[in-house]
Amino acid sequence: MAERSSAWSARSWLVVLTLAVAMAPAGVRGGSPDRTEAVREAVRGGRARSVILFLGDGMGDSEITLARNYHVGAAGRLAFDTFPLTGTYTTYAVHEADPSRPDYVTDSAASATGWATGVKTSNGRISTAAGTDRILKTIVELAREHGIPTGSVTTAEVTDATPAALAAHVNDRNCQGPADMGPCPGYRKSAGGLGSIAEQEVDHQVEVLLGGGRQRFEQAIEGGAFGGRTVIESAAAQGYIIVTDAAALAATRPGRRVLGLFNAGDMSLEWGGEPAAPYPGSGPQRCREGQRPAVEPSLAEMTRKALQLLDGPRGFFLQVEGASIDKRDHVADPCGQIGETVAFDAAVAAGLAYAARHPDALVIVTADHAHTSQIVSPPTEIDHGPGLLSTLITKDGVPMTVSYATNVPGRWQQHTGTQVRIAAQGPQAANIVGVTDQTELFHTMARALGLE
Amino acid sequence: MAERSSAWSARSWLVVLTLAVAMAPAGVRGGSPDRTEAVREAVRGGRARSVILFLGDGMGDSEITLARNYHVGAAGRLAFDTFPLTGTYTTYAVHEADPSRPDYVTDSAASATGWATGVKTSNGRISTAAGTDRILKTIVELAREHGIPTGSVTTAEVTDATPAALAAHVNDRNCQGPADMGPCPGYRKSAGGLGSIAEQEVDHQVEVLLGGGRQRFEQAIEGGAFGGRTVIESAAAQGYIIVTDAAALAATRPGRRVLGLFNAGDMSLEWGGEPAAPYPGSGPQRCREGQRPAVEPSLAEMTRKALQLLDGPRGFFLQVEGASIDKRDHVADPCGQIGETVAFDAAVAAGLAYAARHPDALVIVTADHAHTSQIVSPPTEIDHGPGLLSTLITKDGVPMTVSYATNVPGRWQQHTGTQVRIAAQGPQAANIVGVTDQTELFHTMARALGLE
Repeated sequence: MAERSSAWSARSWLVVLTLAVAMAPAGVRGGSPDRTEAVREAVRGGRARSVILFLGDGMGDSEITLARNYHVGAAGRLAFDTFPLTGTYTTYAVHEADPSRPDYVTDSAASATGWATGVKTSNGRISTAAGTDRILKTIVELAREHGIPTGSVTTAEVTDATPAALAAHVNDRNCQGPADMGPCPGYRKSAGGLGSIAEQEVDHQVEVLLGGGRQRFEQAIEGGAFGGRTVIESAAAQGYIIVTDAAALAATRPGRRVLGLFNAGDMSLEWGGEPAAPYPGSGPQRCREGQRPAVEPSLAEMTRKALQLLDGPRGFFLQVEGASIDKRDHVADPCGQIGETVAFDAAVAAGLAYAARHPDALVIVTADHAHTSQIVSPPTEIDHGPGLLSTLITKDGVPMTVSYATNVPGRWQQHTGTQVRIAAQGPQAANIVGVTDQTELFHTMARALGLE
Repeated sequence: MAERSSAWSARSWLVVLTLAVAMAPAGVRGGSPDRTEAVREAVRGGRARSVILFLGDGMGDSEITLARNYHVGAAGRLAFDTFPLTGTYTTYAVHEADPSRPDYVTDSAASATGWATGVKTSNGRISTAAGTDRILKTIVELAREHGIPTGSVTTAEVTDATPAALAAHVNDRNCQGPADMGPCPGYRKSAGGLGSIAEQEVDHQVEVLLGGGRQRFEQAIEGGAFGGRTVIESAAAQGYIIVTDAAALAATRPGRRVLGLFNAGDMSLEWGGEPAAPYPGSGPQRCREGQRPAVEPSLAEMTRKALQLLDGPRGFFLQVEGASIDKRDHVADPCGQIGETVAFDAAVAAGLAYAARHPDALVIVTADHAHTSQIVSPPTEIDHGPGLLSTLITKDGVPMTVSYATNVPGRWQQHTGTQVRIAAQGPQAANIVGVTDQTELFHTMARALGLE
């Protein structure tokens, strides 16, 4: 294995270079090199030492294209565009009353349960089975059983659905802190349960937990060994370093578990702009970049630090979520959405930089579900979307109109049920090619780490 | 080359079988076989003897998912889901006034020009350059120069944008027959031009032309060698067999060029149903299948016949378009749209059956652009799309709601600008993996046929 990695490593730069050249856009007919050998080189079996999963919440193909057009132009390429192997996967959930039947539009909790455990569940559930409430073992739990360190990084609260599904089990995603347990009485620590998502994440001893949601951890635990103390105090007692700003995060060093809580709620947005509006819509506008306060680390900074903290001979599993792509799509805010997609892409670039030095890493980029935003023609008085519209002036210097129309103005725009893109490189990456289901991603990652 | 093909052929059934097993959905955690070797086997360089391009007009990932959910269930797989290599490509057009700038939402004419010639153009143009009106050589013309037979099959008029871009050059897609030349005066035969799309397709001596649009060919030619005669008469004089129903098509045999015109306009739809409507929308409904009159051949029947007519030692290039996926999406007709997608998939299955016997075929499935339809949650009085909605009862036995909201009710729904799926198998197929542009497809096909 070591020899194979080394042999691959010797060729890896050539492959990367070939792909980079080959993927240059062909705006005019100028030939297009044969990438057959580069793709063949990218197909690798065997074990990975580490798995890095990048999850763009709500980042369907439309959200990807919007961000590309705006930020680098239609012929440009984002970092996550450059992956050598690609496919699509289905994201549907199942019905609570009859888990044999699909629910075509998933939420992030059911979707994360799918890829984190290999089992589909109903919307709102966190790694528990639809109908039965059975505990579903997660890839983080399997990794820990095998002595492999784990990490989870997000721009949402670290107790939000996606990171929650990796290291908690509860029947309702809203049960994020000890004071939020109304929908999950049986899971209260005082009732002998596993406790809130925040408590469970700490109890799971996930080595690196970075994101927002500090207020969940400032709530008092209601029972068990740490009853009466806050979740932060419980974390400190269990060996965590707690950091709450970018400088403190930068100062952390490998050797201790790290809980980084950089905002009371979701982390601050990267970009601002006018939300979409009924015809004729907002804009034409350019987005206001650089809105995140420097005291909060970027997703790329958190990713680089997590990789530094986790890197070691035992390998690791790391999940990195761009959470607010989804959240800004819900409120029809194209600049917010694109800014978060671009920030997510910068985090992916950090992962690719790590993988360039560590070709034994399986790196995956995907989404948990698609979302509302669509690229449409410029609106006219006769022909225009019936929902919310915004026109942006892109990197190409031309207008791009975005339509949000899965709900009436003033209400949250909805997730959509279309299949989404998945891309990967490294050992086992070929298993994401074609049409798969998100539950298969669990097996691809578990196989790569030798967990099944 | 013959040896390699033969060696591959010996393994090809194993690969197909492995992929078929591997792509079975994993609704519950039951393991998921390692497909690494199967994907590696699917990566093949070298020459193809034939290229079959399946083009689902307007068949974005959302349209694919809708058809899958409805027809085979969310965990089922359509024929075009089973391709071993997959990617996405960008579809944008360029502006007529400044071809260096992208137009993010393409029409079928500009898109077809892109993949048929390798050069982007502006919306409405047929294989002519934006701004300059320069003639752009098409893959059909290149194939003919190399003695390779060509064919084009569609459910639209054979003079519609997609087939037109393969074998005609004109500044406006509406110039379909000799009597339709208002927007293209310089292209009139009487003005010394190339003539209408119908005239040019016949003059190009495309070996197999099957679809609708008979009325274009019944128009009288206005100049040149066949002035005063209809395009059909011109075709007969140039050696074409003309057939106008399924029985006559079935009776054709290789050796003569075939022009099949099975409807005066677009070919009849496969399925019917209630169009989408404002909240609460139409349905819940099941679609009415089997609406096409038997006198018109199905797209799969046309595909099988075209393959029979074209198959031979020189190889061939064949394009097969599922045109009315787009046309029914424009009018918010979910049953029509899904029925056409399913019929397109049956044509793809016919292509895969051919490729199973001829592994030296490069088979590609893609779309020219994405479209309006989105899968959303069941509407409620408070939360529902502001456009048109319809709820279908799927193969899974549960409701699926479709939203159409890129234009106000009563107006044509719009194309969207998101990247779309491309899938392939056979020699050179690996060149569609990753993120490419539709212009690169031209080069992949041309390289496979030894045309560049």
